[in-house]
Amino acid sequence: MPQHVAIQGFQGSFHEVAARQYFGAAPTLNFCATFGEVVAQVAGGRADAALMAMENSLAGSILPNYLLLERNNLTITGEVYLPIHQHLLALPGTTLADVQAVHSHPMALRQCGDFLSQYPAWQLVETEDTGLSAQLLAERQTPSVAVVAGAQAAEAFGLQLLAPAIHDDPNNYTRFLVLERAAEAQPVASPDKASLYFYTSHAPGMLAQVLTLVAGHGLNLSKLQSCPRPSQPWHYGFHADVEFDTPAQLGALLAELPRVTEELRVFGAYHRGSMEFEQETTNLKEGGHAELAEAALPRH
Amino acid sequence: MPQHVAIQGFQGSFHEVAARQYFGAAPTLNFCATFGEVVAQVAGGRADAALMAMENSLAGSILPNYLLLERNNLTITGEVYLPIHQHLLALPGTTLADVQAVHSHPMALRQCGDFLSQYPAWQLVETEDTGLSAQLLAERQTPSVAVVAGAQAAEAFGLQLLAPAIHDDPNNYTRFLVLERAAEAQPVASPDKASLYFYTSHAPGMLAQVLTLVAGHGLNLSKLQSCPRPSQPWHYGFHADVEFDTPAQLGALLAELPRVTEELRVFGAYHRGSMEFEQETTNLKEGGHAELAEAALPRH
Repeated sequence: MPQHVAIQGFQGSFHEVAARQYFGAAPTLNFCATFGEVVAQVAGGRADAALMAMENSLAGSILPNYLLLERNNLTITGEVYLPIHQHLLALPGTTLADVQAVHSHPMALRQCGDFLSQYPAWQLVETEDTGLSAQLLAERQTPSVAVVAGAQAAEAFGLQLLAPAIHDDPNNYTRFLVLERAAEAQPVASPDKASLYFYTSHAPGMLAQVLTLVAGHGLNLSKLQSCPRPSQPWHYGFHADVEFDTPAQLGALLAELPRVTEELRVFGAYHRGSMEFEQETTNLKEGGHAELAEAALPRH
Repeated sequence: MPQHVAIQGFQGSFHEVAARQYFGAAPTLNFCATFGEVVAQVAGGRADAALMAMENSLAGSILPNYLLLERNNLTITGEVYLPIHQHLLALPGTTLADVQAVHSHPMALRQCGDFLSQYPAWQLVETEDTGLSAQLLAERQTPSVAVVAGAQAAEAFGLQLLAPAIHDDPNNYTRFLVLERAAEAQPVASPDKASLYFYTSHAPGMLAQVLTLVAGHGLNLSKLQSCPRPSQPWHYGFHADVEFDTPAQLGALLAELPRVTEELRVFGAYHRGSMEFEQETTNLKEGGHAELAEAALPRH
């Protein structure tokens, strides 16, 4: 179990929730302002592991984070899926009529566009982090400010749920990867998923050949993300996630892939993250009235 | 020839250069602050066509623009490739020692990270547009400010090349699409490229089957971009660009694809954009001294 885990974001952020879900209460979390700093911490030994968002079910891949993965000697040892539920938080006693400005990370503000558009007079202020916005509100005690953040931020900083579940789309999930230094990470026992990167020659049909091999060995391609090749305009490498029943299937695929690829890297073999989500219940009061009990989100 | 073309950005922007390269001097350019406004202008009839950046050879696809394409009834009628050369511009007479702040679009600032990191005292100020930054500098006549922008912005606003070609990576190209309303656009005669969108069932190997058909009909897959399916977490649709010699190849592929896809859309059949770039020459003086003559960038 790692002692120090680097995450992007601060107390009350969704990265914190994902890290606690995966690692439990024991490790110290190293809060980082940027994804670059997260990767630098684990690559440089200041953290034993990192947890980094890689994609969101609505917004898609976070492409720069694939570059960070390519350029550092890290290996993926796990993944976490987290439903993203955004709430409007304020100081206890604040009403919607008191609010003049809403602070949050730009992504969180965008995810709540329908709700926020009902209040055109509110000033939207982009900040570094949802959790940090909540913390600053609690410190500064500004009744005219609300923040968009997760329930964990309300709990951490004693804020009230002024309006719960204000995200536009309930199908909002983020996938996080657990990263460790490749040279030191212990192989994961009995993995059922792997993340590969490959580059094929420009000859027509090479990508089809790769994917035919994947299917032929009975692996399921759960994700395929093209990424531009540095210094080779309009050439693309592919990050591919494959799911399998036995590690032997992965081994058989990896034995054949060099025949149809010019470059092949294995970024990690690990266990699939669970998509069975607990019902989010909290004893936080909605505007002082109601219990918040969001519906469980079943696996698609 | 369209009379009004909507572009993202303002006078002196790279979108302006790409639009003039494709449409010539005749059309009026409708400058828009956002990509959403660009698409709204053409979809709503305020512009006859739009030109929109879709990907950069270093940064990859602009994923939100694929969503804009999916959600409006537009068709692709052409494409433009443009080399992106960033320069440090300032008022005539300004020296590097005078500079205290550098204004530009965040993407342009990031593309010049190596150069800018040599001047840690400079304040970096993110703005809406490279061309707009140049215009404001010319209007405000602030000798302590420099901007990162293209040579076209220097020419448009009478600025000096304080440091030419400060972009980190010379392999910096942007691909733009030409968009028109699908209901009114004239079919492009003798196209040699098409942009498709397809979604397959989750059965293993379906994507391999699609790509095997593409290759089997002799088309070259020049781009494959996965995009999340709205309301279907971790399901992906694919935007695929295919190049071909004769439209009959495209027709044969399109006749077979419904057999292996659950959804299929053709976003346009058009002519490939040229990747043969003119040498960028300008009579702008570098710091008052030298002619700027950047090397021609050959096709890879």
